[in-house]
Amino acid sequence: MEAQRQEAAGCADDAQRALSERYRAVRELTVALVAPLSDADATVQSMDDASPAKWHLAHTTWFFETFVLRDHVPDYRLHDERFPFLFNSYYEAEGRRHARARRGMVTRPTLDEVRGYRAAVDAAVLAAIGTLPQAARALVALGCHHEEQHQELLVTDMLHLFSENPLEPAIWPAARKVPVAMPGPIGWIARDEAVVEIGHAGEAFAFDCEGPRHRALVPAHAIADRTVTNGEWAAFIADGGYRDARWWLSDGWAWVQREGVEAPLYWEMRDGVWTRFGLDGRRVVDPAAPVTHVSFFEADAYASWAGARLPTEFEWEAAAAAHDAAGGNQLDVAGAIEPRPSAGGPAFFGDVWEWTGSAYRPYPGFRAADGAVGEYNGKFMSGQFVLRGGSCATPRGHARASYRNFFYPHQRWQFTGVRLAKDL
Amino acid sequence: MEAQRQEAAGCADDAQRALSERYRAVRELTVALVAPLSDADATVQSMDDASPAKWHLAHTTWFFETFVLRDHVPDYRLHDERFPFLFNSYYEAEGRRHARARRGMVTRPTLDEVRGYRAAVDAAVLAAIGTLPQAARALVALGCHHEEQHQELLVTDMLHLFSENPLEPAIWPAARKVPVAMPGPIGWIARDEAVVEIGHAGEAFAFDCEGPRHRALVPAHAIADRTVTNGEWAAFIADGGYRDARWWLSDGWAWVQREGVEAPLYWEMRDGVWTRFGLDGRRVVDPAAPVTHVSFFEADAYASWAGARLPTEFEWEAAAAAHDAAGGNQLDVAGAIEPRPSAGGPAFFGDVWEWTGSAYRPYPGFRAADGAVGEYNGKFMSGQFVLRGGSCATPRGHARASYRNFFYPHQRWQFTGVRLAKDL
Amino acid sequence: MEAQRQEAAGCADDAQRALSERYRAVRELTVALVAPLSDADATVQSMDDASPAKWHLAHTTWFFETFVLRDHVPDYRLHDERFPFLFNSYYEAEGRRHARARRGMVTRPTLDEVRGYRAAVDAAVLAAIGTLPQAARALVALGCHHEEQHQELLVTDMLHLFSENPLEPAIWPAARKVPVAMPGPIGWIARDEAVVEIGHAGEAFAFDCEGPRHRALVPAHAIADRTVTNGEWAAFIADGGYRDARWWLSDGWAWVQREGVEAPLYWEMRDGVWTRFGLDGRRVVDPAAPVTHVSFFEADAYASWAGARLPTEFEWEAAAAAHDAAGGNQLDVAGAIEPRPSAGGPAFFGDVWEWTGSAYRPYPGFRAADGAVGEYNGKFMSGQFVLRGGSCATPRGHARASYRNFFYPHQRWQFTGVRLAKDL
Amino acid sequence: MEAQRQEAAGCADDAQRALSERYRAVRELTVALVAPLSDADATVQSMDDASPAKWHLAHTTWFFETFVLRDHVPDYRLHDERFPFLFNSYYEAEGRRHARARRGMVTRPTLDEVRGYRAAVDAAVLAAIGTLPQAARALVALGCHHEEQHQELLVTDMLHLFSENPLEPAIWPAARKVPVAMPGPIGWIARDEAVVEIGHAGEAFAFDCEGPRHRALVPAHAIADRTVTNGEWAAFIADGGYRDARWWLSDGWAWVQREGVEAPLYWEMRDGVWTRFGLDGRRVVDPAAPVTHVSFFEADAYASWAGARLPTEFEWEAAAAAHDAAGGNQLDVAGAIEPRPSAGGPAFFGDVWEWTGSAYRPYPGFRAADGAVGEYNGKFMSGQFVLRGGSCATPRGHARASYRNFFYPHQRWQFTGVRLAKDL
Repeated sequence: MEAQRQEAAGCADDAQRALSERYRAVRELTVALVAPLSDADATVQSMDDASPAKWHLAHTTWFFETFVLRDHVPDYRLHDERFPFLFNSYYEAEGRRHARARRGMVTRPTLDEVRGYRAAVDAAVLAAIGTLPQAARALVALGCHHEEQHQELLVTDMLHLFSENPLEPAIWPAARKVPVAMPGPIGWIARDEAVVEIGHAGEAFAFDCEGPRHRALVPAHAIADRTVTNGEWAAFIADGGYRDARWWLSDGWAWVQREGVEAPLYWEMRDGVWTRFGLDGRRVVDPAAPVTHVSFFEADAYASWAGARLPTEFEWEAAAAAHDAAGGNQLDVAGAIEPRPSAGGPAFFGDVWEWTGSAYRPYPGFRAADGAVGEYNGKFMSGQFVLRGGSCATPRGHARASYRNFFYPHQRWQFTGVRLAKDL
Repeated sequence: MEAQRQEAAGCADDAQRALSERYRAVRELTVALVAPLSDADATVQSMDDASPAKWHLAHTTWFFETFVLRDHVPDYRLHDERFPFLFNSYYEAEGRRHARARRGMVTRPTLDEVRGYRAAVDAAVLAAIGTLPQAARALVALGCHHEEQHQELLVTDMLHLFSENPLEPAIWPAARKVPVAMPGPIGWIARDEAVVEIGHAGEAFAFDCEGPRHRALVPAHAIADRTVTNGEWAAFIADGGYRDARWWLSDGWAWVQREGVEAPLYWEMRDGVWTRFGLDGRRVVDPAAPVTHVSFFEADAYASWAGARLPTEFEWEAAAAAHDAAGGNQLDVAGAIEPRPSAGGPAFFGDVWEWTGSAYRPYPGFRAADGAVGEYNGKFMSGQFVLRGGSCATPRGHARASYRNFFYPHQRWQFTGVRLAKDL
Repeated sequence: MEAQRQEAAGCADDAQRALSERYRAVRELTVALVAPLSDADATVQSMDDASPAKWHLAHTTWFFETFVLRDHVPDYRLHDERFPFLFNSYYEAEGRRHARARRGMVTRPTLDEVRGYRAAVDAAVLAAIGTLPQAARALVALGCHHEEQHQELLVTDMLHLFSENPLEPAIWPAARKVPVAMPGPIGWIARDEAVVEIGHAGEAFAFDCEGPRHRALVPAHAIADRTVTNGEWAAFIADGGYRDARWWLSDGWAWVQREGVEAPLYWEMRDGVWTRFGLDGRRVVDPAAPVTHVSFFEADAYASWAGARLPTEFEWEAAAAAHDAAGGNQLDVAGAIEPRPSAGGPAFFGDVWEWTGSAYRPYPGFRAADGAVGEYNGKFMSGQFVLRGGSCATPRGHARASYRNFFYPHQRWQFTGVRLAKDL
Repeated sequence: MEAQRQEAAGCADDAQRALSERYRAVRELTVALVAPLSDADATVQSMDDASPAKWHLAHTTWFFETFVLRDHVPDYRLHDERFPFLFNSYYEAEGRRHARARRGMVTRPTLDEVRGYRAAVDAAVLAAIGTLPQAARALVALGCHHEEQHQELLVTDMLHLFSENPLEPAIWPAARKVPVAMPGPIGWIARDEAVVEIGHAGEAFAFDCEGPRHRALVPAHAIADRTVTNGEWAAFIADGGYRDARWWLSDGWAWVQREGVEAPLYWEMRDGVWTRFGLDGRRVVDPAAPVTHVSFFEADAYASWAGARLPTEFEWEAAAAAHDAAGGNQLDVAGAIEPRPSAGGPAFFGDVWEWTGSAYRPYPGFRAADGAVGEYNGKFMSGQFVLRGGSCATPRGHARASYRNFFYPHQRWQFTGVRLAKDL
């Protein structure tokens, strides 16, 4: 009995240590990602969809301070009473907040002051972690996953900001390239009609929108064993793909016309060669690597042109379930990142988020959690499409087969790419 | 042998007579619907989403002229060579066309000239119908369904136009009201998880997006036996439903704030009483009748407030399959129309189109038809939600259990309403 | 004594008869101008700057009904109590009014009903004219001038509407052309520095903004003896004038870029020849005729390109004072109109309104009249430029040397043209 | 002869020393003004009308580098070849340039690098100044005046940026307040009609738009001996001035409605007291001080309400000619600044720029200078109004009686105020 109690306590100690370790690692990676940024780099907002790096740094901290420290640590005093107004995002229940489109006006607090905010909250969380009730520990874990999401946005928002600078600065040195052969033709993974289990199961962490796990009927189909490459995309462009209404959804065609879209985001033809901008500056596009920074509209048009379609999220999940979600080209350390040519063999995780043909809607039985945290995902369930798989900017360990990312069909500043499917 | 041939000929005669009859009836109803309109009424475009009545009259005619007469009747000469540019809608393959938002600039041809265009094409179609190849007859049938869709738009676009006139003109006398008791509480129709057949089957006409018929797994759920009433909606308003972010999707909340939405379209509080505008002018809202002219955003918010959700289109179709698609309050003759209080018993057709929680996306195996007619439905499959059932403005006979209507989540000038569902 | 009284009465009779005659003539011309319009033609609003013909017909009538009949005829009952809301324009003091940009929604009252409104008000005014107090007679006179202004707008708004119709309908037959030799080079009328009297003097009617008459110092300068021709303008285009920032004001250059302006409004190059749209349809541009439908920005850019400048309104008025304001090509009867090649000799009135380099601002001592009528002109005195002279759409007799027309620098749907000037 | 030559050389030496001294002083003040700014503060652009501090620092430097060093110093190599694209402003002749509205995207070069750019150009200019041809020295002088203009914009743009930060940071300590009695009623300075000389004369520096000096007839009028105070403005607000269309120009009324304007920029009612935001944070409004941050529309409306009008720029110049342009409350050193209550006696310079009723247009005989520098002022001569006098943010010595500042009628982020005038 005593031994059992000790063992339980030991387990609890292990769990606490693991949680502390996890917290520390996540928080450190975030700081490492912004290491090359100046105060100005970290402050400017380059478009409404993006947020300043400083805001990401502070908002993820606000999450822990609000839902863990404020709500669960007796006598906790806010680091700065004005910060909640500045660094809340969309949690209506948490009261008024600074307009999203004006986040770039906040030149003060400075980047250093925000680092100080992070350090103070980190100290308080780590000091409290041993005495937190279980519900609060779950919020620490949730906050880590939340911060990982923002790590990815941090990278893509930085990329967008620097792309707006005519000087096209390189923030990181280019990654070393390993020469890889051009991938061969797409192979097709066929599957008969079947009722499959979809969604997250088990005790491990998952966002609310990944459940409840439920049965779904997946029709007979085939799914590609790799994503579309830059070389294939260049052929689509060369074939006039962006100028032919046949391939496009009506909204997509309007978008292409209105925005004058002619290639993936960050691509520019220079001296007859396709180049792209990245955190390592402007460089020549690698035809063997997965295409990225394409919108759903572009992905869907490409699929039509190729005589195929996008997979549904269920088809994708059924196919990906057998693969290692922690494999592939995902984010491990700070530095220049980009999709890389496949070394071979089907891979469903890493490199690029893959647009599916599924609108982002709730699973059967979905219920939003109560309270402010409950606003988390359900409120975005209109007008967006699901992406699956994780990208080179996704922190390794963050992705799962059941993971549902989502964006509007015109958005493309994330590392988004295309996998084809077809009916059988 | 000879007898068989005669019988076959007889069948063909019957089929031809039926098609001619159908054609005549559809075309006559359209003309009846615009009987009270002046040339000016028929010309003005009140918003980008709506089209002038004259345009509807001409566009439906252009459809027959182009795909039946031009393509299948030897030596047919266009009634006016300038009309295709004016009256094509979104058929990119049919070439350049007049900008949608400028349709209201076309004061000429006049309403009378457009009536003349209709008469000429009608004569040509009816003269040719006996000799048309089968493919062309199918296009005549398709054109009739197409025109029925435009009949409904004609009614709702007229309503919108007149609602913009400060004089609030009544175009038709009010329908005679039969006193009906207030409906009782919603009853719930429960169903266990099951694989069901979804989509159109058989030889009868259906739009491409209604198929292919396929199996889908529908989870355990309950669906309401009637739609939400005006009285219930007034309670939602009185409870502050339009001012409480909790109930709203994020995009919906932005829409409510931006547009200052406080009630269904055409509702106005006058002297403390809710009124609505209709083709019979402004009148007091009937609390027993189904609420209408609400957007998906409003429908979804109402469902959240009511502790329920919207049904999926599959749940709806499974429930509706047993009901008479030609029953209920649908459009039979020209005149003032509006949703009416239920006489009792579950009804799934008529009164109001019911927002489902399903995004408008292709069924497994869907392929767009080839050529210009093939542009028909597939290209709209992003950003819109499916509505089911048919409304008081839907020509009786047009609706089916498999019928998929679709609109953007903010649109509400159609007769759109709400049926609730819940997970079991 | 008696004789004197009779003579006075006789004078009054004459004045009354003249006023009645004037009223009748003005009102009839308005009706003649819209003779070819259908109900739809008269209802549609083609842009925010323009108004429907029906609105012009009713608004000018509202002016008489409000300021003459309502205010000065005992027991007068409004023709329709709902009309003031619909047909007031910008008289804030007269209460709420229908939004300008929604004027085209008013399909009812019909054109015939508005004609009935005109007839009823005409009858009432003509019946009352003998007994009106002098102040009210002055308002009748003011109303006639007001209506003349709207006659010109009526013509230009109709032209704009029909230009939006892809069918390019011709409403009137083309005017008969008298062959005229190409005008020779511009002659320059020089004037030394002088203090001159500017503004309206005397008892005859003038708008408030034309006074008070005052002294102004006009510097030494030369003013062109004719306006710029279509042929000269085509040379400006051919020389790349629309693509060279050097010639343009900063706001003008932004406008050219944003709107993609490449030629005067209604011009289109067809088969290598410049054509223009008019109320007689699309026809070849006459190189000898004055250029028209150019904005201030274009006029100013042309002048820079030509090494000249626009005249000030004082320079123009000083030069024009010696010329016959009722001469030249002005509006006499309904029909197709357009600027015509000069028959020779300097002319300052008719053909085209001439952009001056003077911003529209009050003269020294200007005071707005009291009450609603007083809103008339003063409130528009920001952001607009003065035009002088009158055009082919200006009712003959309406223009004066002191007359100040005004528009925003980007507007060009009026018959606006260019006269050059230079410093000496 | 020799002595004369030496004297001439001595004069030249003196002139060169004076120019060097002037250059040094201007450049140092600019740097002092941004002393409290972080890299982020100096980078963000808070609205399209404003520019980042870093941009002002670099653009003024670019002016010297381009027009002095590049054009007049043999073998000069640009500090950075990419800077002209970034830091050119509106000199079309100088080639492509970065879009104005995207200036805030340029996080790199950093503030320190821009300081380095300044230092390098300063060293080169000061080294070259002795050997520059006279034309180039004139450009150095022009560049100093140009930089003084940007000093004022720097201050007002910084103020606008910090006003967008919800934390309302105080960048400078508040100025020490000397208690001053409330100013008495406005005194009126009357003047009979007269022909006066207007515009810049003599050898001293002036911008092109201030000349040529010319005669103008100024009518009999009276001009106020002081500007309108905050206390008087509060009375206008309290009297409903912002809600009464009578006082407003039509464009102004539309602006007030559209923007929801209810008080001068930066004013907020807190606990029943009017406060304003400044570089010293948010503080209570001083009723005795001149009102500032009002638009032309507001100034004009106030004048109408007060039964007066705005002075013309000629009336203003005639009255101001006798006053010391270097007196009053103008910018001497970096620090918090704001309009101060008058110590007594008429003052025409300092505190606030005074809106005149004159549109910004060229004087008789005005000609734009040739080449890129010639684009300087003439191209802005549409749609803007002239302001006279100089403000608390105008570097002392920069203002002149002939100085013509200009802004659009809705702009109010400059220190702009109101002086009344009336007709006699």
